[in-house]
Amino acid sequence: MIVRESPSSLKLFFVMQGSVVPKIYGRIISVALLSAIVLLIDQHVVTLPHISIGAMGIFGVALSLFLGFRNNAAYDRWWEARKLWGSIISDVRNLGRHLCLFVGDGADREHILSCAVAFAHLHRGFLRNVDVRTDVVPWIGEEKTTAMMAQQNPADAALRSMADQVGRLIEKDAISGFGQMTISQTLSAMAEAQAGCERIVTTPLPFVYSLLVRRTTYLYCWLLPFALIDSTSWFAPVFVAIVAYVFFGLQSVTNELELPFRKVQNGLPLDAMCRTVEISVSEALGREAPAERAPVNHVLT
Amino acid sequence: MIVRESPSSLKLFFVMQGSVVPKIYGRIISVALLSAIVLLIDQHVVTLPHISIGAMGIFGVALSLFLGFRNNAAYDRWWEARKLWGSIISDVRNLGRHLCLFVGDGADREHILSCAVAFAHLHRGFLRNVDVRTDVVPWIGEEKTTAMMAQQNPADAALRSMADQVGRLIEKDAISGFGQMTISQTLSAMAEAQAGCERIVTTPLPFVYSLLVRRTTYLYCWLLPFALIDSTSWFAPVFVAIVAYVFFGLQSVTNELELPFRKVQNGLPLDAMCRTVEISVSEALGREAPAERAPVNHVLT
Amino acid sequence: MIVRESPSSLKLFFVMQGSVVPKIYGRIISVALLSAIVLLIDQHVVTLPHISIGAMGIFGVALSLFLGFRNNAAYDRWWEARKLWGSIISDVRNLGRHLCLFVGDGADREHILSCAVAFAHLHRGFLRNVDVRTDVVPWIGEEKTTAMMAQQNPADAALRSMADQVGRLIEKDAISGFGQMTISQTLSAMAEAQAGCERIVTTPLPFVYSLLVRRTTYLYCWLLPFALIDSTSWFAPVFVAIVAYVFFGLQSVTNELELPFRKVQNGLPLDAMCRTVEISVSEALGREAPAERAPVNHVLT
Amino acid sequence: MIVRESPSSLKLFFVMQGSVVPKIYGRIISVALLSAIVLLIDQHVVTLPHISIGAMGIFGVALSLFLGFRNNAAYDRWWEARKLWGSIISDVRNLGRHLCLFVGDGADREHILSCAVAFAHLHRGFLRNVDVRTDVVPWIGEEKTTAMMAQQNPADAALRSMADQVGRLIEKDAISGFGQMTISQTLSAMAEAQAGCERIVTTPLPFVYSLLVRRTTYLYCWLLPFALIDSTSWFAPVFVAIVAYVFFGLQSVTNELELPFRKVQNGLPLDAMCRTVEISVSEALGREAPAERAPVNHVLT
Amino acid sequence: MIVRESPSSLKLFFVMQGSVVPKIYGRIISVALLSAIVLLIDQHVVTLPHISIGAMGIFGVALSLFLGFRNNAAYDRWWEARKLWGSIISDVRNLGRHLCLFVGDGADREHILSCAVAFAHLHRGFLRNVDVRTDVVPWIGEEKTTAMMAQQNPADAALRSMADQVGRLIEKDAISGFGQMTISQTLSAMAEAQAGCERIVTTPLPFVYSLLVRRTTYLYCWLLPFALIDSTSWFAPVFVAIVAYVFFGLQSVTNELELPFRKVQNGLPLDAMCRTVEISVSEALGREAPAERAPVNHVLT
Repeated sequence: MIVRESPSSLKLFFVMQGSVVPKIYGRIISVALLSAIVLLIDQHVVTLPHISIGAMGIFGVALSLFLGFRNNAAYDRWWEARKLWGSIISDVRNLGRHLCLFVGDGADREHILSCAVAFAHLHRGFLRNVDVRTDVVPWIGEEKTTAMMAQQNPADAALRSMADQVGRLIEKDAISGFGQMTISQTLSAMAEAQAGCERIVTTPLPFVYSLLVRRTTYLYCWLLPFALIDSTSWFAPVFVAIVAYVFFGLQSVTNELELPFRKVQNGLPLDAMCRTVEISVSEALGREAPAERAPVNHVLT
Repeated sequence: MIVRESPSSLKLFFVMQGSVVPKIYGRIISVALLSAIVLLIDQHVVTLPHISIGAMGIFGVALSLFLGFRNNAAYDRWWEARKLWGSIISDVRNLGRHLCLFVGDGADREHILSCAVAFAHLHRGFLRNVDVRTDVVPWIGEEKTTAMMAQQNPADAALRSMADQVGRLIEKDAISGFGQMTISQTLSAMAEAQAGCERIVTTPLPFVYSLLVRRTTYLYCWLLPFALIDSTSWFAPVFVAIVAYVFFGLQSVTNELELPFRKVQNGLPLDAMCRTVEISVSEALGREAPAERAPVNHVLT
Repeated sequence: MIVRESPSSLKLFFVMQGSVVPKIYGRIISVALLSAIVLLIDQHVVTLPHISIGAMGIFGVALSLFLGFRNNAAYDRWWEARKLWGSIISDVRNLGRHLCLFVGDGADREHILSCAVAFAHLHRGFLRNVDVRTDVVPWIGEEKTTAMMAQQNPADAALRSMADQVGRLIEKDAISGFGQMTISQTLSAMAEAQAGCERIVTTPLPFVYSLLVRRTTYLYCWLLPFALIDSTSWFAPVFVAIVAYVFFGLQSVTNELELPFRKVQNGLPLDAMCRTVEISVSEALGREAPAERAPVNHVLT
Repeated sequence: MIVRESPSSLKLFFVMQGSVVPKIYGRIISVALLSAIVLLIDQHVVTLPHISIGAMGIFGVALSLFLGFRNNAAYDRWWEARKLWGSIISDVRNLGRHLCLFVGDGADREHILSCAVAFAHLHRGFLRNVDVRTDVVPWIGEEKTTAMMAQQNPADAALRSMADQVGRLIEKDAISGFGQMTISQTLSAMAEAQAGCERIVTTPLPFVYSLLVRRTTYLYCWLLPFALIDSTSWFAPVFVAIVAYVFFGLQSVTNELELPFRKVQNGLPLDAMCRTVEISVSEALGREAPAERAPVNHVLT
Repeated sequence: MIVRESPSSLKLFFVMQGSVVPKIYGRIISVALLSAIVLLIDQHVVTLPHISIGAMGIFGVALSLFLGFRNNAAYDRWWEARKLWGSIISDVRNLGRHLCLFVGDGADREHILSCAVAFAHLHRGFLRNVDVRTDVVPWIGEEKTTAMMAQQNPADAALRSMADQVGRLIEKDAISGFGQMTISQTLSAMAEAQAGCERIVTTPLPFVYSLLVRRTTYLYCWLLPFALIDSTSWFAPVFVAIVAYVFFGLQSVTNELELPFRKVQNGLPLDAMCRTVEISVSEALGREAPAERAPVNHVLT
């Protein structure tokens, strides 16, 4: 995630970071070139068939419809993913308070809360397909880490491990029925947030939309030069480039937001959020908390 | 569900899988032909009445409104269906943890959890109208399977069977009141997700929309050639074909997403999600888990 | 609710059932006639003032905005109503399971569940303003039916009656505190769904929208012929008829969906959903369940 | 709230009640006059600068965007307000049932339920800024009414009073822990609905939108005559009047819906909903229930 | 937040407070000047290339799409933030009632409720990055304030402190299991609202949108003069200024709403809401409540 102030008017057009331009400039330039060539041929070689700008308008409304829909759907996925991680953070804090109330603040609470940090890291590892071993081991030790990571769903294993520890407390009669119920509800809330994230990561937007939207965008930008011969004369290549920037740009943005967990510039800062979980747990355990992750070169991962 | 990387620019126009083109190419070609014939007649035989492109624009905005609404509604149904299955997955995992806490991890837990897997399969069988006998029997045995599948709503029968088993535990005083309440809430959550899926499968979008949208799309594409005589000349057939691709394509997509449980290319991968349930339960029971279902030819069913 | 396959391309234009055409053909024809007359007068009698198609475009965008909003709002009401009935169905199933767990499956459970069926029927009677006596009596008997239907809100009376029966079980100490709490929550869920339906039925969309939208639609369709003189020539009457079909049609659809409980073609199938409740309760009680209601002439009421 | 059948086509244009016309006819007429004057000057005095209709179209799309957004936001507030009152109604009914289960139907229940009616009235008094003393006194007596209305938030005081009464029952050991929890959750639900309504009433839509939308609407309608000189000739004043009706009308509607609790024609019928609460409580207490409030001159307040 | 009546038609155009004009008048004037210069050069020096208004229309639809999306997303954030604070208010009131029921109204309740006020202030301090020491100290004393503010997340520390106090009551056996569960749920609700606000404040809209939208708006307004040469003649500078007002204005509004907690004119009135919390707690404790915060110069902070 990019964290920076909006650039002033002057700098606005030269900021490349976080911009989609580096990804699409090839396409922008080719479309602008096409437009220039069309113009040259039309004026000096042979009159090309023109498309009225009104006809392109109809097409443009349809394309806007597509891109608008896709953009909304992708942003909703991104924001829902952020909400789910936000609820993981508050669930871990709740767990800390519930354990304090119903279990007391001894070693048991420490073990279970450490396991909650492991859960966050393992969940992140699953979503980003990265190895989180070094982040998990300090909290729950080598052995448990290995056991959990041997499972197909390590985060679920972490939740089960927490339940097991609560189960042992029940056997020792160290936790009331109310506590059992409250804590198992909190674990369920964490599991629901986890399943929500898995849903987003395993279920992309229907593939057919990608095809339909991308094809339509290309067709639109390739036809546009024929429509602008009449209506913009020598502005045409500039104008085509701008419109291509808008449409290819929007399409490129939605590609990034659609899968919000990847470690890309506009992805969600899972590392930073895992750190937030670590801070919350550290403070709840009365330990010194690590510092928040700071953005590196305006990017928070 | 189709699972594949977005094709590169080169391949983009030749990917047929997951595309709507195979379903609508007939309509696209006929409209393009119509356009060519209209053009020929207009230029060589008799001047046909023209429709101004502005008038078509008005119509186009209205059509976009329809298609946009229908597309949003269909996508919402598809995504809600996915959410409901996601919550079935997390509910089953929660059930496993709750049983562990309140019942212990003996045979009772195993029976109830197996029944939860049966629930998922039977629910899938209902939604897809397929026979799931062979998937259910390994989990709960011949006899129970037959009994459940004799009911009008086998998935509901599976839930009732789980409740019965909890009921027997209550009679044996083997589960606390807190456990009873927590587990019955989890079963209720599963029942709500199930009823949500039934709602989607039994209640299509109002039929009147289908008529209105389809008729309007046809009328639009048939009138378009008369509007393009003036404004695109010999580009007309190509242009009409593209617009027809956009509008018929969008309409065809929404038909698939509207009923998201069918075994079509853009349907939800119920088989794979049932497998996820099986994996979760297997891991919770300490058994070896089956492998995740892999997409066959990019399609996950 | 209409339940039928989408008609094939051939039949599409001749299906009248579920279509809005029968309701609006008068308006369509009059607008087409007006258009023909305007055209005749303009060409043979006296030149009429023309409206540029661009000006109509502005109007058309505004009208689309109105109709789009109204359509979304009406559909949302329809779908929310369906969701509420879906949750009534799952709440009744949950109630059956909870009674089984906390009360056992004796006569008490049977009485309370029968009362839940009565609740569904009485609620339907309230929403549709029909007499449901004959549906209720077989479940709870003459006397109780009469008593409930004497109340201003019979469905609420059914809920209170269920609470009374649970209250008597409490007095006999036949139900644990956990059971009391779980069951009273389930009854609350039913009451919330009921209040949601009452909200939809007693609160139509603000009247001012109806006026604004309907007036605007008429004005639009009456002005359109003056705008099409220039731009479509002898296509005008056909074109006007199609646009009128689109706009009057959409307005007519939203009128039906706005009040989703009425027994109209696009209304919700309350009878069939009450039958689903009966089936669920019958199966939960181990009785033979009645058959699902089948659509009559493609219509499910 | 206006409750009436949609008028037939004939009457549609003469219904003034519930229409926005009486509020905006001044603006409509002045814009139409301006248009006529512009036309006269342009044709007989001096050629005025024209604005192309295409340019107005761009402006029109932007304006539609504004009005559409504001309309959606205002309607959402209105509908959310209705939902919150709907949940107050069902919460009061739930409270009646819960008290019946956990407290029995003696005088205590009667006192607490009466207090719930007082809550509804006091809440309405706060939202509408009216004196509800005469409605409250019959339910909880002079003294308590005075005490509550002396607080800054009388409805909150009513909730606290209910909690106090439950507290006294706890001291007398007349209510189980389960009952305490269930009832306090119901009171919390009422408090949340109350806070939701307070949120809507104290937080209008951001003022900047009002400015932006109103100014833009005025500018648009004042510029429109210059755009219609070319494109509609003597239709211009009529056309301008219609467009002004549409845009000023929509803006005026959203002003009413934005603050849904005021006693205006399109406001929510708080009086009628408080009566519904009274009916529910009366029936729950076995008293004779008052009649529902009937609309006076089609208006339900 | 600005609290004032909508200005009458006369004043509407001169209200500067709450208007975006002061922020964007520079840009509006430069675009108008550009338009005048373009016009002059085109007519007296050399014919400049024109852009057809239809081409700008296509661009305008795309820009509207962007601005509309961004506006919706920003407003949703603003309104969600308001909802979260609304639920903090009702949660504090609920906490007061729950403590009254389960703990009694002694000193313990007073301490915990005072801590809830501190929570609200500390949370505000975090969101606005201001020092709230002077607001917190009167409620919980110097020492505790210092301890909490030494933590990275002071509001979370306040919640933990409340849990600690409940924990001590548990040790003294002064609160039933039901009370423990109810109160810990209320604390969890507060923590969830807190985490929701943190989510909004730490996660701005994706930076890429800001770039895309701002660049597109600039490009649009700079190209517009070339499109208006033909179609509006000497109206052009005025027209360009108005369109620039609309688009820059909307963009500026969304910048304010996107981060709703800042102390800006259209920000949320956190001070006033903290005062509402203080009033609720004071009335619950039977103390004299402070007066509500009144808007200063129409602005509530």
